[in-house]
Amino acid sequence: MKYKDLSFLERAMPTDWNPDDWLHRERERHLEELKDFLRIPSVSTDPAHASDVARCARWLRDRCEEAGLVAEVHATPGHPVVYAEWLNAPGAPTVLIYGHYDVQPADPLELWRNPPFEPVIEDGTRIVARGATDDKGQMYCHVKAVEALLATSGTLPVNVKMIFEGEEEVGSRHLDAYLEENRDRLAADIVLISDTSMFARGRPMLTVGLRGLSYVEVHVRGASHDLHSGLFGGGVANPALGLARMLGGLLDESGRVTVPGFYDRVRDLPESERREMAALGHDESALREEIGVTELVGEAGWTALERMTVRPTVDVNGLWGGYTGAGAKTVLPAEAHAKVSCRLVPDQDPEEVTAMLAAYFRERCPAGLTVDVDPHHGGVPFRIDRDTPELVAVSRALERVWGVAPVLGHSGGSIPVVASFVRLLGLPSVLMGFGLEDDRLHSPNEKFELENYWQGIRSAAWALIELSGGR
Amino acid sequence: MKYKDLSFLERAMPTDWNPDDWLHRERERHLEELKDFLRIPSVSTDPAHASDVARCARWLRDRCEEAGLVAEVHATPGHPVVYAEWLNAPGAPTVLIYGHYDVQPADPLELWRNPPFEPVIEDGTRIVARGATDDKGQMYCHVKAVEALLATSGTLPVNVKMIFEGEEEVGSRHLDAYLEENRDRLAADIVLISDTSMFARGRPMLTVGLRGLSYVEVHVRGASHDLHSGLFGGGVANPALGLARMLGGLLDESGRVTVPGFYDRVRDLPESERREMAALGHDESALREEIGVTELVGEAGWTALERMTVRPTVDVNGLWGGYTGAGAKTVLPAEAHAKVSCRLVPDQDPEEVTAMLAAYFRERCPAGLTVDVDPHHGGVPFRIDRDTPELVAVSRALERVWGVAPVLGHSGGSIPVVASFVRLLGLPSVLMGFGLEDDRLHSPNEKFELENYWQGIRSAAWALIELSGGR
Repeated sequence: MKYKDLSFLERAMPTDWNPDDWLHRERERHLEELKDFLRIPSVSTDPAHASDVARCARWLRDRCEEAGLVAEVHATPGHPVVYAEWLNAPGAPTVLIYGHYDVQPADPLELWRNPPFEPVIEDGTRIVARGATDDKGQMYCHVKAVEALLATSGTLPVNVKMIFEGEEEVGSRHLDAYLEENRDRLAADIVLISDTSMFARGRPMLTVGLRGLSYVEVHVRGASHDLHSGLFGGGVANPALGLARMLGGLLDESGRVTVPGFYDRVRDLPESERREMAALGHDESALREEIGVTELVGEAGWTALERMTVRPTVDVNGLWGGYTGAGAKTVLPAEAHAKVSCRLVPDQDPEEVTAMLAAYFRERCPAGLTVDVDPHHGGVPFRIDRDTPELVAVSRALERVWGVAPVLGHSGGSIPVVASFVRLLGLPSVLMGFGLEDDRLHSPNEKFELENYWQGIRSAAWALIELSGGR
Repeated sequence: MKYKDLSFLERAMPTDWNPDDWLHRERERHLEELKDFLRIPSVSTDPAHASDVARCARWLRDRCEEAGLVAEVHATPGHPVVYAEWLNAPGAPTVLIYGHYDVQPADPLELWRNPPFEPVIEDGTRIVARGATDDKGQMYCHVKAVEALLATSGTLPVNVKMIFEGEEEVGSRHLDAYLEENRDRLAADIVLISDTSMFARGRPMLTVGLRGLSYVEVHVRGASHDLHSGLFGGGVANPALGLARMLGGLLDESGRVTVPGFYDRVRDLPESERREMAALGHDESALREEIGVTELVGEAGWTALERMTVRPTVDVNGLWGGYTGAGAKTVLPAEAHAKVSCRLVPDQDPEEVTAMLAAYFRERCPAGLTVDVDPHHGGVPFRIDRDTPELVAVSRALERVWGVAPVLGHSGGSIPVVASFVRLLGLPSVLMGFGLEDDRLHSPNEKFELENYWQGIRSAAWALIELSGGR
């Protein structure tokens, strides 16, 4: 990952930017536009909604044009990408903004208080509809921010490129190819994404780390067909027992992964960041209650929060073999299978870890059995340096808008598109999210706080200003 | 298990029994009767065949009566039992003969060379039909043997009671209750069953040992619902990993079961019997080829044949948990499950072993997880003493008929009814089988060798004679 020369951030911008009053006056219109956006059922996974997805892309292109961007709908083998740009700030940095206009399916419909594609304002404080927070509400902040800056100052402090994809909820399956094909056009200094959460209500967060992924499927085979466990039991190796033996050995007594080489490339978090994370006051008892366990268990020497965000780990995601129906069947199965995945942290390499996993199973396979390890997709871990000038700039913007410095937080999950931006465009992402934990994304009655929408637009505007070096 | 005083076996019978010539003359009629028997599709598992099962019971009762027995059809909550007796040998032993007249379903029908319930003689050497060997052909030998003795001598050398059940292929679900209710009526000195195999063509076998069974279902639970493995992985215990750890520890490096107390009651086979078993020349390479493995693996210090027949063992019969569909889903499952069973040998007790298994899982359950162990049915192991006078008597009968002493063999499987006879009637069973390994029981084109049918009838007749002490 290489960073551009951002010494220009030090110089003051010529203009006194002030989009805030204008934005305050335009709130109702912006809310009505978001409602229009949410009314389009752009469910990417459902072929019956393909024309809605296409309509949504055209609607978004038109709004981008109205905001003052040059916008196009770009076809892909799947749903289209909406591309918009404003490149009239020569010499200034270029910010690539990413979001997605497709949404999750709405079912189970019967659990919604109102129809999922008929947005409703509840309690005067939140808008309820499918896609409200994931990601229509959040991504639309950036369109409105650009509109505000152009309306109030006639120009933007930075060059802006936007890509809004229509397939995020189906695995961004054509995005990598799109990025590769448009590498030159998408050249930028930084990626800015609003598709994550705040630390808490009123407390903004920049997500500075994501874990990577190595995911394999393990197939253990013994006899050529299922045998009667009475007639053959004891005589031949049992693949389910053999698989269990190998899986059971993946973690040692201290909760560390035993796969040889697994920790070789792990870059530990600096002690200062560990202290900072500890100071956040992660509520372990609330977590225990939320997930219904009496004890949080894992690698010795690390807090639960650290183990779930900045430490690598291994999990069995699924396993199956033999007879799984009701009652007792005395079968000695011919095969047993498992899905096994590792969450990775910098500087672990997914392909390398996948190879280590394969070697682990090959070397530990008990006599009389064979093992095959098939890799699924992987993902590289992501961590943005806390001193990265663009991160610092966006942090300043958030502090100005929210009155409090953002938490620099890590997430244990993966956002594949962040890895794609690193891999294909060489760009780190600043993850500035406006969602809340209770926004129910992917669930019935998904909502977005109106406060976060208004503040999100302001944050997006001030992020562009700060990224230019202006104030 | 207590044995009756059988000193009377020493005394000679008054009659010179000779059923053989008569049996030779009646062969064709006996074959036609077996065909009639096989034409009735007494498929016990299929409600559509319930009336066929009932018709089959009546047919069998009528044949028993024609043979000279007093016969009745006894209703049960399921399919009926056919009971027949001849008790006119006061002072002589009483032999309880067991068999079953129900059969497995015939599908897949398209794999049969002829319709399964239209018996065909192939190559002039075997009769092909569903139930030919399992168990109509074998059990009918005993009816014809009684008929032969009564026809040629006007009497029987022993008292005879027969029970033929109609639910063996559906787990003998009402047999235990029937045995309990008819405990007095079924009082006998020995049980004689023909529902097993010969050692090889022309080489009879008495099965002197069966393994017992302890079967449990293990449920491991962690969080109250499935979690995202990215957001929570590393923070909480994974039930699939925990289950694997417990299952993987069930066997030690030498292939011995690690469950505390498991071997405490195991009665080792005497060295002399181990030598005898070794002398049988079990073909391990043929076994490897049959089941498609390159290596036979198991408890150190015992041959594969011993491990599959006279050694106790543990197997995982099934396991499941988490995501088992296509592709990669990053779930941290809330639950994982396994079916685990142990094959037992004398004097292990199924309930005791089940309790040991439950304790094993309770004690090894990793932190942050809970485990429940639910018992399924168990079965006591069976071993008949090689010196048991009735076994010796039947062995003499087989040697007379086949010209060679029977192999005294162990089977690794269980025959629940054998355990029931021990438990409910206090009676050991002599297992005198006439099937062959290639009889395809439970499969299309099931067959029974005509030679084994004729010889089986003679064996059954001479067994009664020898059991009386006559010659």
